[in-house]
Amino acid sequence: MIKRFVFGKAFDTEAVKDKPEACKEKIPYFENAETSSFSLEMDSSDIVYGLGENVRGINKRGFIYESFCTDQPEHNENKSSLYAAHNFFIVSGNKKNFGAFFDTPGKVTFDIGASSYSTLKVSIENTGYEIYIIENPTLELIIKEFRNLIGQSYIPPRWAFGIGQSRWGYTCEEDIRKIAENYRKNKLPLDMVYLDIDYMEKFKDFTVNKKSFPDFKNFVSDMKKNSVRIVPIIDAGIKMEDGFELYEEGKENNYFCKDKDGNDFIVGVWPGKCCLPDFLNPEAREWFGMKYKFLTDQGIEGFWNDMNEPALFYSEKNLEKVFDQVKEMKKLNIGLKESFALKDTILNLANNTDDYKSFYHCKDGKKIRHYDVHNLYGYNMTRAASEAFEKISPEKRILIFSRSSCIGSHRYGGIWMGDNMSRWQHILLNLKMLPSLNMCGFLYTGADLGGFGENTTEDLLLRWYALGIFMPLLRNHSALGTREQEPFRFKNSIEKFRNILNLRYRLLPYIYSEFMKAALQGTMYASPLGFIWSKDEDARRTEDQIMIGESIMIAPVYEQNATGRHIYLPEEMKLVKFKDSESYEEKIIPAGHNFVHIALDEVAVFIRKGHILPLADNAESVEKIDFENLTTISFAEKGARYELYTDDGECRNPSLRENLRSISV
Amino acid sequence: MIKRFVFGKAFDTEAVKDKPEACKEKIPYFENAETSSFSLEMDSSDIVYGLGENVRGINKRGFIYESFCTDQPEHNENKSSLYAAHNFFIVSGNKKNFGAFFDTPGKVTFDIGASSYSTLKVSIENTGYEIYIIENPTLELIIKEFRNLIGQSYIPPRWAFGIGQSRWGYTCEEDIRKIAENYRKNKLPLDMVYLDIDYMEKFKDFTVNKKSFPDFKNFVSDMKKNSVRIVPIIDAGIKMEDGFELYEEGKENNYFCKDKDGNDFIVGVWPGKCCLPDFLNPEAREWFGMKYKFLTDQGIEGFWNDMNEPALFYSEKNLEKVFDQVKEMKKLNIGLKESFALKDTILNLANNTDDYKSFYHCKDGKKIRHYDVHNLYGYNMTRAASEAFEKISPEKRILIFSRSSCIGSHRYGGIWMGDNMSRWQHILLNLKMLPSLNMCGFLYTGADLGGFGENTTEDLLLRWYALGIFMPLLRNHSALGTREQEPFRFKNSIEKFRNILNLRYRLLPYIYSEFMKAALQGTMYASPLGFIWSKDEDARRTEDQIMIGESIMIAPVYEQNATGRHIYLPEEMKLVKFKDSESYEEKIIPAGHNFVHIALDEVAVFIRKGHILPLADNAESVEKIDFENLTTISFAEKGARYELYTDDGECRNPSLRENLRSISV
Repeated sequence: MIKRFVFGKAFDTEAVKDKPEACKEKIPYFENAETSSFSLEMDSSDIVYGLGENVRGINKRGFIYESFCTDQPEHNENKSSLYAAHNFFIVSGNKKNFGAFFDTPGKVTFDIGASSYSTLKVSIENTGYEIYIIENPTLELIIKEFRNLIGQSYIPPRWAFGIGQSRWGYTCEEDIRKIAENYRKNKLPLDMVYLDIDYMEKFKDFTVNKKSFPDFKNFVSDMKKNSVRIVPIIDAGIKMEDGFELYEEGKENNYFCKDKDGNDFIVGVWPGKCCLPDFLNPEAREWFGMKYKFLTDQGIEGFWNDMNEPALFYSEKNLEKVFDQVKEMKKLNIGLKESFALKDTILNLANNTDDYKSFYHCKDGKKIRHYDVHNLYGYNMTRAASEAFEKISPEKRILIFSRSSCIGSHRYGGIWMGDNMSRWQHILLNLKMLPSLNMCGFLYTGADLGGFGENTTEDLLLRWYALGIFMPLLRNHSALGTREQEPFRFKNSIEKFRNILNLRYRLLPYIYSEFMKAALQGTMYASPLGFIWSKDEDARRTEDQIMIGESIMIAPVYEQNATGRHIYLPEEMKLVKFKDSESYEEKIIPAGHNFVHIALDEVAVFIRKGHILPLADNAESVEKIDFENLTTISFAEKGARYELYTDDGECRNPSLRENLRSISV
Repeated sequence: MIKRFVFGKAFDTEAVKDKPEACKEKIPYFENAETSSFSLEMDSSDIVYGLGENVRGINKRGFIYESFCTDQPEHNENKSSLYAAHNFFIVSGNKKNFGAFFDTPGKVTFDIGASSYSTLKVSIENTGYEIYIIENPTLELIIKEFRNLIGQSYIPPRWAFGIGQSRWGYTCEEDIRKIAENYRKNKLPLDMVYLDIDYMEKFKDFTVNKKSFPDFKNFVSDMKKNSVRIVPIIDAGIKMEDGFELYEEGKENNYFCKDKDGNDFIVGVWPGKCCLPDFLNPEAREWFGMKYKFLTDQGIEGFWNDMNEPALFYSEKNLEKVFDQVKEMKKLNIGLKESFALKDTILNLANNTDDYKSFYHCKDGKKIRHYDVHNLYGYNMTRAASEAFEKISPEKRILIFSRSSCIGSHRYGGIWMGDNMSRWQHILLNLKMLPSLNMCGFLYTGADLGGFGENTTEDLLLRWYALGIFMPLLRNHSALGTREQEPFRFKNSIEKFRNILNLRYRLLPYIYSEFMKAALQGTMYASPLGFIWSKDEDARRTEDQIMIGESIMIAPVYEQNATGRHIYLPEEMKLVKFKDSESYEEKIIPAGHNFVHIALDEVAVFIRKGHILPLADNAESVEKIDFENLTTISFAEKGARYELYTDDGECRNPSLRENLRSISV
């Protein structure tokens, strides 16, 4: 049961489309002693699930999280905000079991037992906001109700479940043709190559550099013939350049965010000085959305939206101030305080709170301070694209995913897990983030495999893929200046990579099927064990294993040099170890705590009793997968049935009922 | 067997006191194809142990480490250098088993299978250096031979194994008296309170702020009556201030590092502009060392040396350049490149390589570029203190430990594990670092419990103590501006903290005994399991459990919200769970992979078969421990014997043989 509580006059985030009647009673569970602050006492059995894209555990207890979308490339356990605002959590324990959604577009602080060990305290900065409380005996039902409230999750085209290769540093057509060639030559499957900012002319949105891509349309078409889609990036900021049509139009029509005096607010991003489209203004949103047509007209079918927290290198005004401050500091004997101050002055140029407080949106003729609705910016950029795509491509789904997000934008696009680093810790972080995101409606998601920043190593990349092949969005992406990390760069291990990448395509009918069922039914694609074995205390505390769909549990190795790992089985399961496409090892493992050896070139899955894992043959791209002739691996002495979802992979309104087919053993 | 290989003309680091005859043969194991570069192929069975203070695993495979002492507060898996240079490693596998020590004072790069998965490559920047190869069938013997080569490890006074409390932010006598009072009042044991930079006058070495410490000698004496030692910090940089005696003397006598023109090299540190004592110059070293007498004369018996990589906020010359660069940038439209450049310009002010290349030491009348001998700076600061203490206090040991270190300085002092953060990841990092440091001769060591930077939480501190009570150096330390983290701040959990802290004192006879045996015999205080069960593959791969001394294995919980953890037992052991000083639970656990529940207020140890763990009664300080009347917990059906080491806790040349006494069950 869902109850809606209204406090003050809330800005409508449109996260909830059909709002239930507001409830007049006192909000349950929470003490509301201070203004806009809600606290509750947790007992030792309580686990706090949710909060979507954040660091730390599946169980979020023990840290202070802040919902304030931030361009944060350091995904360490000490970061309170990443790129998203996902204000939904569940408290689940012996005495309580409920979900809470804090619907507000500004900053929210979740102190989950950090300041005081057993106190959960939510503090909301805005004065108007709405809170939804969802009560239900099972976690599954809480999720279903919440997802039903916020609306169906975005569904990408099926080819977007293939493998993508990306790098900030592919500068021209030749670079990309070579990447695809190397994939095909080495018999590594591939469906997408991404274009980072290099493809544009001076980093201007909706331009293509003519020197490096002399015939873009033809290039895109060539690649597609080879079953490789080109997926370009679009940034939030628009270069201030006289004569640049996009800029001129935006300026002319007042489509940009303004400063307090009504002038276009000027910030620095990749192209230097830029203006920010006012995505909260429906006209500006429509205008920006229809610009994607420049690229869809050239055969593009997928995009990623970036820098839309929005990330600011600086604001023009603050930059001037900082230059003056630095000049002043020259006169000092720089010791303890001054040294920190100098560093902070420069580091605080980027994503500065005062900057976010000094520009404005315009909605229905009303001026709205950006800071108060900050978390809606990326959301509405994705929405701009997504709503335009319905017009541009009414029949076929278009791929769109974003860096920044907020609950509500899950209906319009996917997200990737942000600009991570080549670190072992991130494998586990990504594993934990996946179910947390699912709870908040984000299903099409995945991490930059191999790591975006820093230099990867062969073993890290292999182990990361062994998790990544279970993520809906599967992309290898790296930053300029880092080690090249396309799988074929590791000459001695191409076969190992080939086997793992092939396995993705063999699993794809299952992955797509489980994804679609989760999207269409409002359920979890990836579940914490505690969602299924909610009475099993060791299962509830397991933070490094998840269920993928109904049939399999995964437990990737995330420690360097490990030859295996500890695994907890809430019940007897069948371990299947894949090494190549010819054969696999299987073994029944008893319930309880176990240790399983998993070599660097192996992928292990655990099939639940009474369940089936359907498998396709190898394929070099999604469109070459034979969805009709599947084999199965099952753990079902007494027989079992699996409902496979298949569709044409592109229809905009897929129906669950019409597209299910039974597989029995 | 040790073989010494000499390449070019090496600067003598004095890491090895009695050098064996140089070997004329070709160096074994390594290919030496390029100049100053040594590579070898690893097979999959090879584990690489060693490298002392570094991030990542006990097994160092899969990363590029650099020996170049660096003030690095981010101890993430991506950091190639921390504060130390510990150029010793062991390659241990089916086909090889040897140790290698690269004796050189400059930068060394260890690429342990990162660039190429199975290649280990060592690159040395200096052209003259020495390499020692140690061959022996067992890891224990390799360590013993190496430790014998580099000389006996530093031994602190016994009270230094007590509990220390520290914080950057205790500003005056009253602050510290209150800390000690709170410990005593809450029946939390305590032996030391540390003084961070706040106690000095304007951060000037060997001064005490008279306002905040009006009668320092009396204060120190009062505290000692209460069994609390005061341990002040000493920094490397000396404030440039006319009339400041230390500065004037150093300037007068040419005791400071010089620039290329022979002028004192000016850097910025805490006090603002400073000069750096030339610790490589024996006269300067003696001069600086004897300055500690200012504090020992006031009753001080222990010190920590800091900022001695040396950490530089900036050099005077570079700072001017940077100010000019920033001024120039004001004219630009700051986009991608310029934005990174601006940030880098400021961030590179600190610990800048060019600065390290532009100052000089003087030894035996010869000018030596700092960069080429960089790793000896902290080493020789510790040595300055330690050699002076032999004169100042010929009978009694003085506590000294340092942030920066290099093999060689292990004879002169301990080290702490550097300025860490309040992160769960650090518990595991500290656990792994401990045996790695022991291999390199550093026995008296430990981490800043609770974390130096950032805000701790109650559960993190409890779990960290549960490891920390097994570290020789046990200190809770935090930075200015972070959450106060003395155990008594957590009002609801004082009993939990009390139980864990008390356990340290109960274990102290064992900890001191095992420490002294390791120091006097050149063995490991803390061992990886693979050192003991070298044929057991799962033991060799265990990265989160260690042996502490001969009797016990520890396996601390390092994951937030976990109620227990997976543990591997190479053989049957007795689990002992301590909760309070009245009782404990014990249980025999079979060999193999197990899961053990360990609550937040419990400490688990695993007693090896045939071994004894002696325990004392609770005591509020080390001098109140009754070392005579010990109880025991043992796992010895057939009886067992333990050799307990005890001495007066302060004698300078303790003898192993005279101080052992048998305990039998």
